[in-house]
Amino acid sequence: AQLALEKDYESHRDYETRYRVVMEAVRDALVLVDVASGRVLDLNTVAAQILGAEADALTGSAFTQEFDGRRRGEFLEELVNAAGDEAAGSTTAKTRRGKVEVAIYPTVFRAAGEKTLLCRMEVAGSQESVAAELT
Amino acid sequence: AQLALEKDYESHRDYETRYRVVMEAVRDALVLVDVASGRVLDLNTVAAQILGAEADALTGSAFTQEFDGRRRGEFLEELVNAAGDEAAGSTTAKTRRGKVEVAIYPTVFRAAGEKTLLCRMEVAGSQESVAAELT
Repeated sequence: AQLALEKDYESHRDYETRYRVVMEAVRDALVLVDVASGRVLDLNTVAAQILGAEADALTGSAFTQEFDGRRRGEFLEELVNAAGDEAAGSTTAKTRRGKVEVAIYPTVFRAAGEKTLLCRMEVAGSQESVAAELT
Repeated sequence: AQLALEKDYESHRDYETRYRVVMEAVRDALVLVDVASGRVLDLNTVAAQILGAEADALTGSAFTQEFDGRRRGEFLEELVNAAGDEAAGSTTAKTRRGKVEVAIYPTVFRAAGEKTLLCRMEVAGSQESVAAELT
């Protein structure tokens, strides 16, 4: 059983690597937020650039505080609701540091028993302006 | 030690979930290829749509065979070389099923000791045509 667990453990370590490589290979800005605490669990470099700070500094900080005039409880509830709503599916906010309007597309999932939000952020405007913004 | 391993195991299971959620939340087409065998380890729905088949059917199949007139060894070598080349960084190919020209942006990494390619695929043309193609 120990050996089986270790083998399984190896294959799961694999997923950690895959997760990290995918996070940095994609062009989308991604932030993972713990719903209970509202804190940033992880984010990629593209997302950190949009929020206007280093990824290390943002990890563990309150996600709500990165946006202007948003209250924690309400904002998180809005994101969770948008995640559950196939039709709307997004909410907009202005970043606190760079005053950039972003559309946030959230997905809710459970990992290790904790409700987690994956937020894809898009700089507001057309597809072209997003592409320009990110390069 | 068993308990510590199990706790660590829990946190790694977490990464498997994160990996799967991120793969499907992003707009980029992503394929993971085992370099030694050339087989598709995993891909997301966007990538399966570009290749013109179901993700389940493509998993485990030879990645090279999804493109017209490409030989396995050469194609994989080209991808690995492009991954190591900061300047070029991409290669083009035509999908076998849909005859779609795609640019492939590869990244090489090691997971569980195996050399793995993460290929981001973009339908050839402008940013706008890519966006149109994917919607």
